[in-house]
Amino acid sequence: MSNPHPPHPTIFASPDDAETAFYEAIERGDLEAMMAVWADDEEIVCIHPAGQRLTGHAAVREAWRQVFESGSRLHVRVSHTVRWTSALMAAHNVLETLYLGDDPTPHGPMFATNVFIRGAKGWRLLAHHASAASETPTSEGGGNPPRILH
Amino acid sequence: MSNPHPPHPTIFASPDDAETAFYEAIERGDLEAMMAVWADDEEIVCIHPAGQRLTGHAAVREAWRQVFESGSRLHVRVSHTVRWTSALMAAHNVLETLYLGDDPTPHGPMFATNVFIRGAKGWRLLAHHASAASETPTSEGGGNPPRILH
Repeated sequence: MSNPHPPHPTIFASPDDAETAFYEAIERGDLEAMMAVWADDEEIVCIHPAGQRLTGHAAVREAWRQVFESGSRLHVRVSHTVRWTSALMAAHNVLETLYLGDDPTPHGPMFATNVFIRGAKGWRLLAHHASAASETPTSEGGGNPPRILH
Repeated sequence: MSNPHPPHPTIFASPDDAETAFYEAIERGDLEAMMAVWADDEEIVCIHPAGQRLTGHAAVREAWRQVFESGSRLHVRVSHTVRWTSALMAAHNVLETLYLGDDPTPHGPMFATNVFIRGAKGWRLLAHHASAASETPTSEGGGNPPRILH
């Protein structure tokens, strides 16, 4: 009998679904859910805001393990998303605002470019590149619908 | 009679060609060549290392105009490229090392994620996201051939 509530469904029907799972994994501090978002048959790249580039599953996993083990609960609010989508690849650029624990003070903001690929297991993350934002963008890009190319 | 030497050929046969044209335009301080690299029918995003996000042709053009008009010649050496390529979209993550004028002192380094789209005019740039690198990556990713997905 199949498990009606698998802990980490790994089929993401859209880049948005994969992106949502990525940020939910951060919020839960759930390393297995985090790693389930990444493409597992490609070279993956994760650039954290401090400026290290992590390449490959082992390095990406270890970095998130350290983030999650630091113990502080992290909530990321994502806004101002710009989306580019084709049949097999997609990229999003988002504004990330961070909240630590129950502190309502926003941290960041940061810009992140997230690159996705569509494979047999649905949409997965290829790259996450985050860096400090000097300012919050104005309303441009704020409420745009997905842009489907071709 | 057609011009046998158009100043800025705008058909790029590969993401690599578009990326090369992007960095050559920086080196020449050539604003028209720079803007010819960008997709002209999509929402484009350029994040400079200081952390501003520029959206749309007018804002991207104005920012590069200011960079080029500052007068210092800029050479960007690109290395440690990780490539993801599909039929209609591609993304590269690169290490940028900057040289100013004739000064052999390297500046940066920076990581950049470049996102490309293939359209009727060949491959064009959709997004350039650059941020400071805390360290130069080791040899991982350095001499990899293009990774073709699917």
